[in-house]
Amino acid sequence: MKQQDYPPAVQELISQLKRMPGTGRRSAERLALWFLQHGAGDARALAAALTEAVDSTSTCPECGFFATKGELCTACADPARDTALFCVVEQATDVLPIERCGFYRGLYHCLGGRISPLDGVMPENLSIPHLLRRVQSHPGCEVILAVGSDVEGEATALYLAEQLSPYSCKVTRLAQGMPAGAGLGQADAITLMRALQGRTGM
Amino acid sequence: MKQQDYPPAVQELISQLKRMPGTGRRSAERLALWFLQHGAGDARALAAALTEAVDSTSTCPECGFFATKGELCTACADPARDTALFCVVEQATDVLPIERCGFYRGLYHCLGGRISPLDGVMPENLSIPHLLRRVQSHPGCEVILAVGSDVEGEATALYLAEQLSPYSCKVTRLAQGMPAGAGLGQADAITLMRALQGRTGM
Repeated sequence: MKQQDYPPAVQELISQLKRMPGTGRRSAERLALWFLQHGAGDARALAAALTEAVDSTSTCPECGFFATKGELCTACADPARDTALFCVVEQATDVLPIERCGFYRGLYHCLGGRISPLDGVMPENLSIPHLLRRVQSHPGCEVILAVGSDVEGEATALYLAEQLSPYSCKVTRLAQGMPAGAGLGQADAITLMRALQGRTGM
Repeated sequence: MKQQDYPPAVQELISQLKRMPGTGRRSAERLALWFLQHGAGDARALAAALTEAVDSTSTCPECGFFATKGELCTACADPARDTALFCVVEQATDVLPIERCGFYRGLYHCLGGRISPLDGVMPENLSIPHLLRRVQSHPGCEVILAVGSDVEGEATALYLAEQLSPYSCKVTRLAQGMPAGAGLGQADAITLMRALQGRTGM
């Protein structure tokens, strides 16, 4: 007796869905059956969106954020941006949280990672020469190092500060301290230490 | 100043991913960026699998489980199955858990839901006439009602038992009692009551 199973096309759909991060066997099965029971429209629309996204999207040749192929990203193409202000982030995905806070008016530079010898990521794997060229062509600019505040982020910030030191630019980094709305009870020791070190007058 | 945002094709991919059940804005964004950063291969493979699955999959004309279009499902097409044993389930998705226990050797019948007047599901919305025809053409068969043990499942089981009573068939239902591996402490009162009512000799 053969064990009843999904038709081959459904099994293939389940295994493709299972490749997505955070999607296990059960979730993939649930999603596949949802597509099958929910009518073909949603499946076709997602299939078209996937193909269109990978076909038409590339990285911005200036900053490394996502952009329509052959074009600059919205920020680099925007004449209203302050071109003497560069915000250096690890990943392209770090750009939107900064945009959403609505405070920043400058340009970005996505490194494509952070220095982490244990993961095989060395300075030469990051988009650092291009950052130096951008800084060189904007004398007097400010470079904000908006990398993570963990060990690899700190190492990346120190390395970048050293590399940027021969250039005529001001290098700053994000303030460290208490997150908004957090009580003292939730803060870890390192956050508290940094909040104390960085205390400001009132 | 324009706020930096994803290219239109990426925004469309995010909104299509967000339609999937259990996928919020943040998960959809995370998945979309994973597809973009992970190379186009996975995106194209999922797009192809989605299209192929909805194009080639239909329901089995006999039992209502998923089947390749124009074919019977694996169980209905298997000559080794016991054709005098029907397991009636609410949804097609209930078939595989039963298959996976490896104990059942008969056929299935998917009702396509359960009687639930509050959700607008009445007996005429379920695949009941077809079940009665299948039972009629197999005199002396057994019909196992493997519907849920909640209120709607109980109502569906009672209605089916009544509809099946004129036919020459044995109607049974799944045993109710303690789940495997559960201690008394975790069992709710109704489960315990049913486990006591259904107690068996040793």
